[in-house]
Amino acid sequence: MFHDGQRGELVLRLPEWLRQFWIAQARPFDTVEAKMRFAIELAGQNIERQTGGPFGAAIFDADSGRLIAPGVNIVEPSNCSIAHAEMVAIALAQQAIGSYDLGAGEMFCELVTSTEPCAMCLGAIPWSGVRRVLCGARGEDACAIGFDEGAKPADWVGALQGRQIEVVQDLCRTEAQAVLQHYRTISGHIYNAQRGR
Amino acid sequence: MFHDGQRGELVLRLPEWLRQFWIAQARPFDTVEAKMRFAIELAGQNIERQTGGPFGAAIFDADSGRLIAPGVNIVEPSNCSIAHAEMVAIALAQQAIGSYDLGAGEMFCELVTSTEPCAMCLGAIPWSGVRRVLCGARGEDACAIGFDEGAKPADWVGALQGRQIEVVQDLCRTEAQAVLQHYRTISGHIYNAQRGR
Repeated sequence: MFHDGQRGELVLRLPEWLRQFWIAQARPFDTVEAKMRFAIELAGQNIERQTGGPFGAAIFDADSGRLIAPGVNIVEPSNCSIAHAEMVAIALAQQAIGSYDLGAGEMFCELVTSTEPCAMCLGAIPWSGVRRVLCGARGEDACAIGFDEGAKPADWVGALQGRQIEVVQDLCRTEAQAVLQHYRTISGHIYNAQRGR
Repeated sequence: MFHDGQRGELVLRLPEWLRQFWIAQARPFDTVEAKMRFAIELAGQNIERQTGGPFGAAIFDADSGRLIAPGVNIVEPSNCSIAHAEMVAIALAQQAIGSYDLGAGEMFCELVTSTEPCAMCLGAIPWSGVRRVLCGARGEDACAIGFDEGAKPADWVGALQGRQIEVVQDLCRTEAQAVLQHYRTISGHIYNAQRGR
């Protein structure tokens, strides 16, 4: 259990390689494919360096192409089931701009994710203030290697669009799928909660 | 933007009053109503002390009645749209037991929440390892004062039960509603993201 000093405090840290990677990352991203390849690269590096699950994400300012914050899945190293790549990227981007609403200022923020959001991350998107979501692999690609996507509304794309949040699917899907398949090949741990068993 | 020292780190802290409250809280809780009144009390105190939105939650070990971790909504003070009461309680409970899965050990963990979960928190529940969810106010009670619950599956209770996660609704609902109504009466800020406007 906690020491009293830690009690009531959650600290989520990106892996050290990604902190360094981010500091070194100055150039803007020109295309949606470049942004997606960055997210897929994060997923691949997260496997390679054994710092979490096979998922990467990032928040970009769509107008400038500037990276606002990256994220990777750190559920296992952080002992935190909510630390999916998208959640980490959203939370760090909000810290970076100093607002819980990425849509509050002049920026048009995009969430780029190597695999489309699970039910939790999907629910988090409207609260985040992002205005566009770019997805690589499909949820079914994650399920195919044993992950669980949760209970998403059948027309989740339409539900986001109804909130004026654009959705692009299947961006570099084959490359994104390859990272998931690689994770299966190396027998990466498929963590899942006990779900009441 | 970040100083480099902060870059890549998210720190979510409970308000100081709740940290002290938690340290002082030693007695186990005997009944589901006592647990719910605790969550409702957190929601009320969070308004009173102006430390966040009108929502409280907690994780309990159902067998012993012991509080594992409390949570309150700290979206605005933390600049973090994911810091709903349920998410905070889940994450802190996982830190307390040292696992991303509250169902991994012998414990049967309950999530008690003053208002039923929004779409994001609902999606987080199966990943958390909790085995029972106790809800006070309904989502429509939160919507009635201007909050947004998001796109939840029509039969979200059935979806959780299908994963062997029990759901109890309307526990002390009138008391839970009263806290939400009080928030409206004092013109508490109804934060919502821009949703693409």
